[in-house]
Amino acid sequence: MSDVDVCVVGAGFAGLTAALRLKRSGHSVALLEARDRVGGRTFTVSGPDGLWIDRGGAWIGPGQDAILRLMREFDVPSYKQYVDGRAIMVTGGKQYRYKGTIPLTMSPWVVANMGAVFAELGHMSKSIPLEAPWTAKNADKWDRITLADWLDRHTLSEQARTLLEAAIAGCHTSAGSEVSMLFALYQMASGGGPGFLLGVENGAEDARPVGGMGAISGPMTTELGDAVHLNRPVRRIVQDDDGVTVHANGITIRARRVVVAVPIAIAGQILYEPMLPVDRSFLHQRMPSGAVIKTNLVYRTPFWRDDGLSGQSFAPGSPATLTIDASTDRPQPGVLCVIDEGPMARRLTKLGPADRRRAVLASVAERLGEKVRTPVDYVEQNWTVERYSGGGMMSHAPTGVLTEFGPALREPCGRVHWAGTESSAVMCGWVDGAVRSGERAAAEVVAQLV
Amino acid sequence: MSDVDVCVVGAGFAGLTAALRLKRSGHSVALLEARDRVGGRTFTVSGPDGLWIDRGGAWIGPGQDAILRLMREFDVPSYKQYVDGRAIMVTGGKQYRYKGTIPLTMSPWVVANMGAVFAELGHMSKSIPLEAPWTAKNADKWDRITLADWLDRHTLSEQARTLLEAAIAGCHTSAGSEVSMLFALYQMASGGGPGFLLGVENGAEDARPVGGMGAISGPMTTELGDAVHLNRPVRRIVQDDDGVTVHANGITIRARRVVVAVPIAIAGQILYEPMLPVDRSFLHQRMPSGAVIKTNLVYRTPFWRDDGLSGQSFAPGSPATLTIDASTDRPQPGVLCVIDEGPMARRLTKLGPADRRRAVLASVAERLGEKVRTPVDYVEQNWTVERYSGGGMMSHAPTGVLTEFGPALREPCGRVHWAGTESSAVMCGWVDGAVRSGERAAAEVVAQLV
Repeated sequence: MSDVDVCVVGAGFAGLTAALRLKRSGHSVALLEARDRVGGRTFTVSGPDGLWIDRGGAWIGPGQDAILRLMREFDVPSYKQYVDGRAIMVTGGKQYRYKGTIPLTMSPWVVANMGAVFAELGHMSKSIPLEAPWTAKNADKWDRITLADWLDRHTLSEQARTLLEAAIAGCHTSAGSEVSMLFALYQMASGGGPGFLLGVENGAEDARPVGGMGAISGPMTTELGDAVHLNRPVRRIVQDDDGVTVHANGITIRARRVVVAVPIAIAGQILYEPMLPVDRSFLHQRMPSGAVIKTNLVYRTPFWRDDGLSGQSFAPGSPATLTIDASTDRPQPGVLCVIDEGPMARRLTKLGPADRRRAVLASVAERLGEKVRTPVDYVEQNWTVERYSGGGMMSHAPTGVLTEFGPALREPCGRVHWAGTESSAVMCGWVDGAVRSGERAAAEVVAQLV
Repeated sequence: MSDVDVCVVGAGFAGLTAALRLKRSGHSVALLEARDRVGGRTFTVSGPDGLWIDRGGAWIGPGQDAILRLMREFDVPSYKQYVDGRAIMVTGGKQYRYKGTIPLTMSPWVVANMGAVFAELGHMSKSIPLEAPWTAKNADKWDRITLADWLDRHTLSEQARTLLEAAIAGCHTSAGSEVSMLFALYQMASGGGPGFLLGVENGAEDARPVGGMGAISGPMTTELGDAVHLNRPVRRIVQDDDGVTVHANGITIRARRVVVAVPIAIAGQILYEPMLPVDRSFLHQRMPSGAVIKTNLVYRTPFWRDDGLSGQSFAPGSPATLTIDASTDRPQPGVLCVIDEGPMARRLTKLGPADRRRAVLASVAERLGEKVRTPVDYVEQNWTVERYSGGGMMSHAPTGVLTEFGPALREPCGRVHWAGTESSAVMCGWVDGAVRSGERAAAEVVAQLV
């Protein structure tokens, strides 16, 4: 039994940030992490010759001031995402190579449809108040329909609909039928609009920290020192009049306040005594994690660049739905990140590892050529089966959840405060949102501890 | 550590039935129950002078052959629900007193609209294959839209829409915006059509066991004897090549197979090693329980009968949404059951008990008169805050869940079999479905143990 001011549960970016801010403001902290590593839904590993690979959250973009501030604190520079050359899109049985956001050589009907829907999404998302999306003028209406249904009704071209659903639902790592339209608009608004969500340059994949996300979480962990306890999954949180007792495997922490900084479905696996208020209890049953596999293919050089390709490709329905150049800031080796999301990630999960590898490599080779088939390293991270993420990369709200339970996302429950990117009004779903949520939760706690 | 053939988790009707069938077929059984009582989402309590009250699931109806068979086995007779006299509906600011299914003195426009929608629901639900609703011809289409949205688009009269949404979403103890249209149709089909779901006579509230549900679960528990272990919440289920180890508070059971017979969200709070296959793991995050409060008001006599009233009333948006005569088979005392569901149940949960009681009694008094205000007993059961139900009375599927994860509802995961009313193709959501699911799971296990 260890006595501290604040116990933080979960050492992803939300928990690390909360713990760091609390420690720096003079409070004693214990940070309990279920895994044998920090980082949560980010996970940087190192290879030979200065290579590092982000197996989870990796990118940063404009407007993500919280993570940028943290990078400045720890002297972590960024570098721009490689975007030179042409991107590839595979749709309607054809492969398009193009520059810009979409292939303009597609049918003008499809292009016009996509443009119109994109503009409409931008317009709609502007009406969402970030701090309280459930108060939007059309909140009730949009929370009664799914993203898939809205696209069905507003996209006349079947091909445009398929592309848009794959792209937007992909961001939610779930099927479009699972996601509330209000939540989809909220998440777009939270990032600054659909252009940020779906864009690379000046969007959500604009740049990366040199050294990967681990270059930030590493020194945070060092500064936290022996406050960090790995391999301590929290099972039970008991509140009483004087404080809170946090029971984890092999350790019990007594604290004045607790910050729970884990994905919402994982927060639901902790036993709370007394029970949480009904809306928070119910929220835990209602914001599931998605499915996602990130596979980093390592090659001696980023050979696609020599072929005039950016490495970025999008082929909905294929076993390599998205690819993006994920090389470090050095000229070599070349790293290509393959991202499969939602139903495709679940389908691939059910294959054996050998079949999955074969399917992924064959699919990418159709786009980037035969060299793809012989990577020097194949680094697969299946977040779908990560026990302590409950899936990846982010939770989504099904219909009816934001309007019925939204206020419970951030509302503290007695001595229990909530962090995690899903609880951030700004940049909800990104690493930056996680950092913001950690800062907000730390500020809530500090205000109570005075 | 105790060694048995089969460990059953959860002593609701699903678990009790599974354990009983397994025991009778010659297998040794341990039945672990988290609460200090059996019955799960049924809960019968006794009062003075032979009075008994069902605080949870209470009714039976035609087609519910599994529970009827169980009642015959234990010599439990049934009696018909009291339906004489007029029912009351409060809608559009008016109180209607009527016989039959709806007040025909309402605007003909509203009546015609309700009739048309009701017929359409019947027609649609007929197309749902009960064993695999995700294979219905329109499954994808209907799983992309919510019950609320479908009603918005198919009910021209606002008043009819409000009534229908309150009635159907009420059955799911959730907001209409939360429920998939495919799931709503499936549940109707599972009971034999919308008439069964929403009806009293010849519907889901046609009759009751004499002595309440406890008159059935009681002798089942007696027959199971020392196989039943109360106050043993299960925390961890570990499968290996030779069997399965079930870890509960204060007891560990070693078995060849396990039947998990708890609501789906509660099954998600158990730690499985190794992890469950992805679709089952994800299902646990995706079928939440609803909110419901059942309040039984006890009076010296069922005075409403003398006033020519059946005791049945429906007032959407009021703190006593539904009432129904819940007296025993004796002429007195009179018992009136008040049912509040979904958002209203959550709103009432947030009031203090005294305010809640005041609101409920005032609301019922407007319908049944001043005598309502002075019950001789006030028996409130708030399933919303029952830790080991996770809510009540049943789980619902949000959009996208049945089509993406439906097959995982019943598919065993190694040595782990699944029961619970939500896993029953027939009478899904009723006590009868729970009994059926227990019989099906027991048969699965028996086939494996030969």
